[in-house]
Amino acid sequence: MGPLVHHVFFWLKNPDSLEDKQLLINGIKTLKTIEQVEDIHIGIPASTENRDVVDNSYSVTEMLIFANEADEATYQNHPIHLDFVKNHQHLWDKVLVYDSRSVL
Amino acid sequence: MGPLVHHVFFWLKNPDSLEDKQLLINGIKTLKTIEQVEDIHIGIPASTENRDVVDNSYSVTEMLIFANEADEATYQNHPIHLDFVKNHQHLWDKVLVYDSRSVL
Repeated sequence: MGPLVHHVFFWLKNPDSLEDKQLLINGIKTLKTIEQVEDIHIGIPASTENRDVVDNSYSVTEMLIFANEADEATYQNHPIHLDFVKNHQHLWDKVLVYDSRSVL
Repeated sequence: MGPLVHHVFFWLKNPDSLEDKQLLINGIKTLKTIEQVEDIHIGIPASTENRDVVDNSYSVTEMLIFANEADEATYQNHPIHLDFVKNHQHLWDKVLVYDSRSVL
């Protein structure tokens, strides 16, 4: 099996606050330094066509690539990740996570 | 801005059918040949820890990387993509799409 894709979507408490959005993005950037994180994508909703199947209601997204489930578990308990959650969780109202393992 | 990440989650009508799952995966693989698709990840739920914030109820996921919104729009109307939808939509009960543009 291929890599593990850990995709997280954040809905901010104050979705119109550019400051809160930037604080969250800055926090996510600290996760890049965690050894198990092979790659990272930090994003905001794209300006694609509005379709019923497209959810563009989130504020910020992070996608992290790990080698496998063990590395993802190590990341979850890594001090840098725990600090990120502790220092930024007041910003978000909802978090949704999709973990997938590549079948290619 | 960086690339556009197009992440699609499929819930199968018959989630216990390995045959339906493989048919869908085989269909997704045809999307790799579309010129605008820079990279592709085809996945199934990873065996990460069950947490309230993790949604592992989907059957199959595809993540496609595009250069920008224009390429994603071209892809949506590409004959290979339209054939994929026409020939496989009977397999799924629900589709959910997240499009994000990298801020890195």
